[in-house]
Amino acid sequence: MGFWKSFFGSAETASIQTRLEADGVPVVSDRADTSTRIFFSTERDIDLYELEELCDAVGWSRRPMRKVRKAIQHSFLVVSMWQQRGVTRRLIGFARATSDHAFNATIWDVVVHPEFQTKGLGKALMRYTIKKLRNEDISNITLFADPHVVNFYRRMGFMPDPEGIKGMFWYPD
Amino acid sequence: MGFWKSFFGSAETASIQTRLEADGVPVVSDRADTSTRIFFSTERDIDLYELEELCDAVGWSRRPMRKVRKAIQHSFLVVSMWQQRGVTRRLIGFARATSDHAFNATIWDVVVHPEFQTKGLGKALMRYTIKKLRNEDISNITLFADPHVVNFYRRMGFMPDPEGIKGMFWYPD
Ligand SMILES: CC(C)(COP(=O)(O)OP(=O)(O)OC[C@H]1O[C@@H](n2cnc3c(N)ncnc32)[C@H](O)[C@@H]1OP(=O)(O)O)[C@@H](O)C(=O)NCCC(=O)NCCS
Ligand SMILES: CC(C)(COP(=O)(O)OP(=O)(O)OC[C@H]1O[C@@H](n2cnc3c(N)ncnc32)[C@H](O)[C@@H]1OP(=O)(O)O)[C@@H](O)C(=O)NCCC(=O)NCCS
Repeated sequence: MGFWKSFFGSAETASIQTRLEADGVPVVSDRADTSTRIFFSTERDIDLYELEELCDAVGWSRRPMRKVRKAIQHSFLVVSMWQQRGVTRRLIGFARATSDHAFNATIWDVVVHPEFQTKGLGKALMRYTIKKLRNEDISNITLFADPHVVNFYRRMGFMPDPEGIKGMFWYPD
Repeated sequence: MGFWKSFFGSAETASIQTRLEADGVPVVSDRADTSTRIFFSTERDIDLYELEELCDAVGWSRRPMRKVRKAIQHSFLVVSMWQQRGVTRRLIGFARATSDHAFNATIWDVVVHPEFQTKGLGKALMRYTIKKLRNEDISNITLFADPHVVNFYRRMGFMPDPEGIKGMFWYPD
């Protein structure tokens, strides 16, 4: 809790969602100390070791870097969230989406670093991702939610099983 | 029922699933009359009017052709199923998948023409699609199933909500 909450009142935190203008635009800036800010990017030149560290931090099992690189290359949208302090950038959030570039997009690998969770940044990351997809005229945005985050996505406007539509996974028989 | 059942005994129909060798290889051939066969293809040069007709036949709402073309272009895999009689080809089934080319694929728009349904061809189409995705080293094959086809996919090895994972759709608030 402490870190960001000590910087911003709740109004400041709420305003995160309305200040997602463009890539590289700070969404949270520390008015007391302008050398710290948080921003989003859709650039794909992410250090894969830094991304691995982020995923490690939330306990995800490791994946071959070669495949992660390929997945990033072939995702329709890649969103990263950064903390910048002075000249130092730190990767603190990530999300990506596959798509047919026309009708459907599916969001994968949504993550916020534990030190930055519960401060509204997951919500900001999702809103930014949704906005980018909507800008590309994608109307059907989907995802597969682990049980413990269903309510997180629900707050973001996602419905589980709408009209009985079921998410299904294939397992070899 | 009549059409294929009159050609093949049930053993013949069952063997559809084991004869999915390669693109262009017939999966069902009429031994009494070699001028009729059914085959699969992953070629993308599908006549969009023919595809529209197929989707009309199962009552799907029409989609702008410009977007359908784009979606086909940007799908990872496009599978079509054809009936060939003499020199005439007819599009009788379709499926496609989006993917990050590494971990995940999501199957969309699975359809078999009503005249050819309940003959094992939907199953053959799905098996072919899954096989193609597995050949590309995709381990996580997903889809969103309408309620009336959940059991169709279940027979194909798809599990709804495994470990509580929920398929979710975004709707603007
Ligand atoms: C899920 C995750 C991205 C949320 O990020 P976050 O920055 O903590 O979320 P926020 O602070 O923006 O929370 C936004 C809202 O969702 C709620 N929320 C956050 N996590 C939640 C959860 N696990 N369950 C239910 N609600 C949750 C918050 O209370 C907040 O509600 P509010 O708008 O009423 O205040 C983050 O916890 C995470 O990375 N978890 C580990 C990785 C993971 O499980 N990813 C999802 C894989 S499907
Ligand atoms: C769903 C669809 C592709 C199935 O094709 P099909 O050629 O009729 O299916 P098959 O004959 O290969 O059936 C395979 C098995 O699934 C079963 N099955 C077929 N349709 C089913 C359904 N709607 N519900 C439950 N089981 C079904 C069959 O009984 C058969 O079972 P068996 O292996 O025990 O014999 C086809 O009905 C269709 O195109 N429907 C309209 C479009 C649609 O709804 N697509 C799915 C969108 S999510």
